[in-house]
Amino acid sequence: MTSERECINRILHYVQNHDRDYLIKGIGDDCAVLNKDGENCLLLTTDTLVEGVHFDMAWHPPYLLGRKCAAVNLSDIAAMGGKPSTCLLSIAFPGLVPAWLDDFISGFTSILNEYDTLLVGGDTVKSRNDLIISVTVTGEGSRKQICYRSGAKPGDLIWVSGSLGNAAAGLELCRRYQFQPDEVPDKWQVLIQAHLDPEPQIDLGRVLASSGFVHAMMDISDGLATDLAHLCQESCVGAEIQQELLPVSKVLENAAMEMNAEALDWMLKGGEDYHLLFVSKASDEQKLRQLISDTFGREIFCLGRIIEGQGVFLCKSGGERQEITYQGYDHFSAQ
Amino acid sequence: MTSERECINRILHYVQNHDRDYLIKGIGDDCAVLNKDGENCLLLTTDTLVEGVHFDMAWHPPYLLGRKCAAVNLSDIAAMGGKPSTCLLSIAFPGLVPAWLDDFISGFTSILNEYDTLLVGGDTVKSRNDLIISVTVTGEGSRKQICYRSGAKPGDLIWVSGSLGNAAAGLELCRRYQFQPDEVPDKWQVLIQAHLDPEPQIDLGRVLASSGFVHAMMDISDGLATDLAHLCQESCVGAEIQQELLPVSKVLENAAMEMNAEALDWMLKGGEDYHLLFVSKASDEQKLRQLISDTFGREIFCLGRIIEGQGVFLCKSGGERQEITYQGYDHFSAQ
Repeated sequence: MTSERECINRILHYVQNHDRDYLIKGIGDDCAVLNKDGENCLLLTTDTLVEGVHFDMAWHPPYLLGRKCAAVNLSDIAAMGGKPSTCLLSIAFPGLVPAWLDDFISGFTSILNEYDTLLVGGDTVKSRNDLIISVTVTGEGSRKQICYRSGAKPGDLIWVSGSLGNAAAGLELCRRYQFQPDEVPDKWQVLIQAHLDPEPQIDLGRVLASSGFVHAMMDISDGLATDLAHLCQESCVGAEIQQELLPVSKVLENAAMEMNAEALDWMLKGGEDYHLLFVSKASDEQKLRQLISDTFGREIFCLGRIIEGQGVFLCKSGGERQEITYQGYDHFSAQ
Repeated sequence: MTSERECINRILHYVQNHDRDYLIKGIGDDCAVLNKDGENCLLLTTDTLVEGVHFDMAWHPPYLLGRKCAAVNLSDIAAMGGKPSTCLLSIAFPGLVPAWLDDFISGFTSILNEYDTLLVGGDTVKSRNDLIISVTVTGEGSRKQICYRSGAKPGDLIWVSGSLGNAAAGLELCRRYQFQPDEVPDKWQVLIQAHLDPEPQIDLGRVLASSGFVHAMMDISDGLATDLAHLCQESCVGAEIQQELLPVSKVLENAAMEMNAEALDWMLKGGEDYHLLFVSKASDEQKLRQLISDTFGREIFCLGRIIEGQGVFLCKSGGERQEITYQGYDHFSAQ
């Protein structure tokens, strides 16, 4: 098997989720959605992070790793427009010093506290070689407001909530500075932080979901090229994004220049930005910008449009149109 | 850190679960218990199984391993007297043939179907070395009927739902027959099956919980000596069990004799029997036996009594009294 998608498709072959009134959405979105009381839904999500694949203990301080393991799951709740409520933590490790675990749990619970989420259970087991952390987060949302990946329609505008590629550039900096993130020049710290300590967009997700303007949403964990392809596939549409509209930070451009790297690759394929990717009607563009500006004093960025057909395409300034469908990060094949 | 308990105690130090109306029980029982709608509760549990620690791929057929990964979680729902409803599956693996995954998922979903539980999400990731499977199961139960570990009182009778030690003996047989469970003589197959394909006691757990006779319950995953110590600790009591009352199968005694092993060790320390351990008032003994006999046509086994104080003690037929507190299996230190 060469991709996570192939793996999931094999699993889906065995899943027979007959009609149940409590199952609103199963496999295939950022969270599973279950009916809670008719009006409200229970959200469920789980993400596993593996040492040497998703993180490197040589440069990831345990406190920030704890935060990140929770953040990537909280981000899935944000992607539905939900509010997180509880969390389960499973850690498998071959051998661990108590001080490392203390720092990890301290970070893990610090971000849960920020988002009013309770650690209510878990499992601690020994592994032979790898440190592997599995987190499950539950959340809630109003049934009428929850945003799925499947609501995009041709003509819709495509938005992201912030600059792309920072986390990928931060990872590259950690690699190049050989396990000494403290020695990375201050000017790059915003990129390092994007990689080590991403911020789940819980408050933004809830406002977007309740605005009525957003009819499909997800978070960017595997890179824009792959995540937009997921959204398009679930919505049975295609997408066209404009290169000159991609939100790029000055610091990212500078880092790319100094490291002789491609900023565009980080932005499209890097993954782990944990910004929200969402669509709205074109006619709601100004109202949506105004709402987010008024509520949070921040910008959101329009990248392009949903189109009929299939595939995700990047339109370059010279007029060239390049297919980038599923060209992002694949957790499954990454090493 | 030398034990799973020490690890959990470190984690608990950072957990500040302030009063929330939706949190009924956090860390410390077989499931977390959340308020759903006043009358009903949501149950949450997660268990992680690690290759080489919790299972050995050399003798565990993928279909049965899939069943077991779901069963150990379903058993936690049974331990509260709940009804399972949904499931999340995370698999981290270094490299896997599609046929293995097909068999694993086929087994995993087969037991979910038997217990009317839907696979609604998960995560598939690559690991460097270990195959690690994390499962989360949600369930439901009536708030008035859910059984915790903390309800035992001095004088209560201690019960188990079936023969102890079969799973431990089956594991030993798999080890001795060097990865060829098919070559184990037929007479031992019931032990092999107890290890490879344990049965969660969902229906029994629900009847016990709704009977009104049972006021503390858990499942036996780490061995009677450890699990009874957990129940006693949560209830602030001690326990005294009689060796001659321990339910032992004839096949287990024969296997112990042929393998020159101690049946008593398997029964007390082996773990993974996934039977239910529960307590009732002494005056309800006959009503409880009758109920289970009438409903399921099966026996339950009274082992001894809850006592004041601390610790779990085994009373031997010769009158010797031996402390066995927490002498069962520890997932954390096992190799």
